[in-house]
Amino acid sequence: MTEHRNASIARDGKSIILAHDHGLEHGPAAFEGVEDRLDPETVFEMATHDAVTALAVQKGLAEQYYPSYDDQVNLLAKCNGSSSLWMGEPYSPQTWSVEYAAELGADAIGYTVYPGTNTEPQMFEDFQEVQEAAREEGLPVAMWSYPRGQAIKEHRKPETIAYATRIGLELGADLVKVKYPRSGDAMAHAVDAAGAADVVLSGGSKTSDYEFLSTVETAMDAGASGLAVGRNVWQRDDPEGILDALEQVVFEERSAEDALDQ
Amino acid sequence: MTEHRNASIARDGKSIILAHDHGLEHGPAAFEGVEDRLDPETVFEMATHDAVTALAVQKGLAEQYYPSYDDQVNLLAKCNGSSSLWMGEPYSPQTWSVEYAAELGADAIGYTVYPGTNTEPQMFEDFQEVQEAAREEGLPVAMWSYPRGQAIKEHRKPETIAYATRIGLELGADLVKVKYPRSGDAMAHAVDAAGAADVVLSGGSKTSDYEFLSTVETAMDAGASGLAVGRNVWQRDDPEGILDALEQVVFEERSAEDALDQ
Amino acid sequence: MTEHRNASIARDGKSIILAHDHGLEHGPAAFEGVEDRLDPETVFEMATHDAVTALAVQKGLAEQYYPSYDDQVNLLAKCNGSSSLWMGEPYSPQTWSVEYAAELGADAIGYTVYPGTNTEPQMFEDFQEVQEAAREEGLPVAMWSYPRGQAIKEHRKPETIAYATRIGLELGADLVKVKYPRSGDAMAHAVDAAGAADVVLSGGSKTSDYEFLSTVETAMDAGASGLAVGRNVWQRDDPEGILDALEQVVFEERSAEDALDQ
Amino acid sequence: MTEHRNASIARDGKSIILAHDHGLEHGPAAFEGVEDRLDPETVFEMATHDAVTALAVQKGLAEQYYPSYDDQVNLLAKCNGSSSLWMGEPYSPQTWSVEYAAELGADAIGYTVYPGTNTEPQMFEDFQEVQEAAREEGLPVAMWSYPRGQAIKEHRKPETIAYATRIGLELGADLVKVKYPRSGDAMAHAVDAAGAADVVLSGGSKTSDYEFLSTVETAMDAGASGLAVGRNVWQRDDPEGILDALEQVVFEERSAEDALDQ
Amino acid sequence: MTEHRNASIARDGKSIILAHDHGLEHGPAAFEGVEDRLDPETVFEMATHDAVTALAVQKGLAEQYYPSYDDQVNLLAKCNGSSSLWMGEPYSPQTWSVEYAAELGADAIGYTVYPGTNTEPQMFEDFQEVQEAAREEGLPVAMWSYPRGQAIKEHRKPETIAYATRIGLELGADLVKVKYPRSGDAMAHAVDAAGAADVVLSGGSKTSDYEFLSTVETAMDAGASGLAVGRNVWQRDDPEGILDALEQVVFEERSAEDALDQ
Repeated sequence: MTEHRNASIARDGKSIILAHDHGLEHGPAAFEGVEDRLDPETVFEMATHDAVTALAVQKGLAEQYYPSYDDQVNLLAKCNGSSSLWMGEPYSPQTWSVEYAAELGADAIGYTVYPGTNTEPQMFEDFQEVQEAAREEGLPVAMWSYPRGQAIKEHRKPETIAYATRIGLELGADLVKVKYPRSGDAMAHAVDAAGAADVVLSGGSKTSDYEFLSTVETAMDAGASGLAVGRNVWQRDDPEGILDALEQVVFEERSAEDALDQ
Repeated sequence: MTEHRNASIARDGKSIILAHDHGLEHGPAAFEGVEDRLDPETVFEMATHDAVTALAVQKGLAEQYYPSYDDQVNLLAKCNGSSSLWMGEPYSPQTWSVEYAAELGADAIGYTVYPGTNTEPQMFEDFQEVQEAAREEGLPVAMWSYPRGQAIKEHRKPETIAYATRIGLELGADLVKVKYPRSGDAMAHAVDAAGAADVVLSGGSKTSDYEFLSTVETAMDAGASGLAVGRNVWQRDDPEGILDALEQVVFEERSAEDALDQ
Repeated sequence: MTEHRNASIARDGKSIILAHDHGLEHGPAAFEGVEDRLDPETVFEMATHDAVTALAVQKGLAEQYYPSYDDQVNLLAKCNGSSSLWMGEPYSPQTWSVEYAAELGADAIGYTVYPGTNTEPQMFEDFQEVQEAAREEGLPVAMWSYPRGQAIKEHRKPETIAYATRIGLELGADLVKVKYPRSGDAMAHAVDAAGAADVVLSGGSKTSDYEFLSTVETAMDAGASGLAVGRNVWQRDDPEGILDALEQVVFEERSAEDALDQ
Repeated sequence: MTEHRNASIARDGKSIILAHDHGLEHGPAAFEGVEDRLDPETVFEMATHDAVTALAVQKGLAEQYYPSYDDQVNLLAKCNGSSSLWMGEPYSPQTWSVEYAAELGADAIGYTVYPGTNTEPQMFEDFQEVQEAAREEGLPVAMWSYPRGQAIKEHRKPETIAYATRIGLELGADLVKVKYPRSGDAMAHAVDAAGAADVVLSGGSKTSDYEFLSTVETAMDAGASGLAVGRNVWQRDDPEGILDALEQVVFEERSAEDALDQ
Repeated sequence: MTEHRNASIARDGKSIILAHDHGLEHGPAAFEGVEDRLDPETVFEMATHDAVTALAVQKGLAEQYYPSYDDQVNLLAKCNGSSSLWMGEPYSPQTWSVEYAAELGADAIGYTVYPGTNTEPQMFEDFQEVQEAAREEGLPVAMWSYPRGQAIKEHRKPETIAYATRIGLELGADLVKVKYPRSGDAMAHAVDAAGAADVVLSGGSKTSDYEFLSTVETAMDAGASGLAVGRNVWQRDDPEGILDALEQVVFEERSAEDALDQ
């Protein structure tokens, strides 16, 4: 058997990606109540948890903190991003070249695409170059695939999420990160539409432990290959606890209830 | 006699191109009723049918599935595309570089151009670079030539389709894929306008076996060099049956009726 | 005496350029009544006439037909163009790189510029790169200089045509193709404004033999270096006849009347 | 201990950056009353003061004056800028390549970014290339991080300034220059948000000695790594006096009052 | 003493630049009454006058005429330009690469910038690349600095002209060409604002001998380094006479009156 395409950021073909680009995407306001987590070192520490198969951060965090963690943490280089101060048409400009990400030790490349917006053509072209540069470096590519724009009335609609995963497959992503389409059946359809590409659930904003874990359980049952999670881990008082539970649900195939009972 | 320009995706100078970029262009909705075909492997299997001279897919499908089929299938690398989620002026951004397509084993390059739209100048320039990169790689180029925009009241009008094929010839396409201009005479005019470039019929949305095959028959009689077909094959319950019949009409010069009677 | 700058597409410093890019610029409708001329081979044949010092075509025609004619025909590679389906601000995108034109055996480069339009800045920049690439290849450059846009009420006005030729000189064209400014005096002024650059008359739409030839005669008397002609040759029943006459007027300095009497 | 990232423009990890790009950003009007300072030599002289750890200027000043001062002054190459004559959406185009800045002896690169404006995507991309080019040259990067645009009602709001410093960290700046957020607490929050990146106070328009120095004192107490100052030095009659006092506050941790009493 | 930065186009640190790009910028209409001057050779001849330290022309004139004059004339390659047919926002696209200008023997590079227009950002970026390319070739750079746009009510206002010269200095011009700001004091202020960069007066439209020369005299007294003149020389019946007089005023420090009396 050849190695899994996403092996560098997965365990047994499954991934728990800890995302920490909220400082750029949402700003310090995202840290209200957990101000100590403004210090990226706290989140790099969380990423050393066995459950975490990769940490997704922007270039600046990687430059400043990754050198102390490269033995313990797999780096998913998030190579584009925008601030929430910006009110324009959704677009995520490139903030990190693939070549420099590789030089800093990246194990995979992450890139956001907004299909359906007026910037779709530009983002497809951006992604084309990034994806092929990643191939040059021998790195897998994760697409944050978030349909937006005029035609998208409801962006978690099952058909929209299935289209989102399919776009990832067609354009050459190895792993596609999508919002939860509200049911296990819809998730299974999205996984089917992705073909040979892996699908991971986007963690989204913070919810209760049970609600969060049972969504993950449903997604895993539907064929998802794991999740990318940020606020649902680092906004919690006990990040280690939720990572313990996630590890059970994602890698040990235990139910949310069981995982919480431990 | 020197080899035919499109020999790498043709048999006796004629082509049946199985197109399967609908996951990107139309989304999973195109697979309603034939959900198993969401798995690209099913369509790669169809492409091993003797009738099929090339399979047209986007980069991601080629990366994930073509390695298992490169002995049996000729790859027409579709190097641009857009989603139907996008509501803007028709434009098809590049999704695959010619160099990387060649590296993955492409036998020809496919590119969509929308003459008459506000993006015509950009698409002509995009095509210029793609076409010349293909020459560098020694690959023939197929243009999906689809006039659109303000001046095009009716995009299947004979004169419009003839202009479409001529644009293919003038800009350096070896093969031009156009919609059916509604009559054999109009098709013959479009074939004349294409000069030394080959013209293939675009299969379009699914119709009855007879209707579909007799259009192909008329087109072949008018001088077409074959067809590119997607939904009329892989949306059918019996793709093999229709491919058998197409083989008769395109390569054996049999009538639609005869081909169906077999 | 050093060789004339345009020697590769001239005879005794004068040029009759047969232009055949109408398939792109005007579409198959330009061939109404002379449908057999849709076959570019018919026009390549005309270009073997002794009177013709160069044939101006787009890349696709050069690729498909020029290999059989490169001994008999000088190739003027028309490196930009647009379709008449397009309704936007006049702009002519690049369709052929100078390097590839040279590789295919081009003897000169042709490029359209529309001074006065909103795209003037872009076209000046495009021309800058094309002109200097041509110098790298050692090729002369012909500018189709066609003022358009808001400030141009009447685009054949003597002052406008003189400005058109001067722009050609200033930007580095060796030969400038302009519309006829309606009188010999105006033509002489345009020739003066072009300084050391040659000026050729643009043939325009088909007129009677006498009307056409006497315009050419007037232009030659005014100092023009010849003409570029398309429809007035290949839309005629007897292209050879008109080429015979043109040869008399342009190279033998005979009058239109004399040339027709032969 | 490894060397501080900004060591080339700092002393003991703290910086007083003398900024003198006002000739471009504000024009000669900024020199009203101190016309002799129009001569950049006067400001290069000021920069030889021990307190000054770097002088920030545009390319032209560096070319003309820096050769005489490169032994005594550290050069912070300000690589973008715009004039106040321009009324468009805030955007600061590149005026100096990193490569040429390094060639002229730059010790660090400075670049303005306006998060929240319509040009945010372009500026993020510009900054990406500049930051990585600086890495190639082994130079630290200072971001002038100035949120602007629709969403920014009040651009000195604590949360906005904290977002500004965080953007600097995330995008790979080593040092972030921000406006004073009106209180020590807000400054401390901005310093926290910047993580491992240094934060320096932007001097702003000229105020009284005491007002200016006590703001600097508060900022230093809040964890700032110094300041970038222009008009508050070179618009003063006694620049040396204020630099003496700044040296006390920034490097000797003395109060504003004490520093002025000397 | 090291050589003056503009030595290649100056005598004793002063310049009289004969400008002849009016064929592009204004068209043949600028030659009304002096039609023989449409022949660039007449102006190249004028440039052989001892008073003239450089001739500023576009690429096409340099290609066609400079080879016969390179021993007698210093070439200031004007590398951008636009026609007066164009009605859009002021912008001057590049028409000549610095590399090719150097190849043709240019002694300096000239470039127009319009600060304050909507194209200021683009023009600053264009100038950045041109200026640095000129450094690669070891050539001085002259900026035609012409503020325009919304904020400029009166483009000869003293403060505007001083801003114009300062922008030249800041962006790395060695010589800045500006309109006359209406008084000697204003000119002196503009010269101060330019710091180490030279300032030359822009000749403007044709006026009487005395009016023209006494403006030049005032400018020289105010510290200008000479002038760039076009129409005030080549639109005159006696270009040699005015050049004789200019030589007196610029290089011999004689008054306009004295110079005319000779």
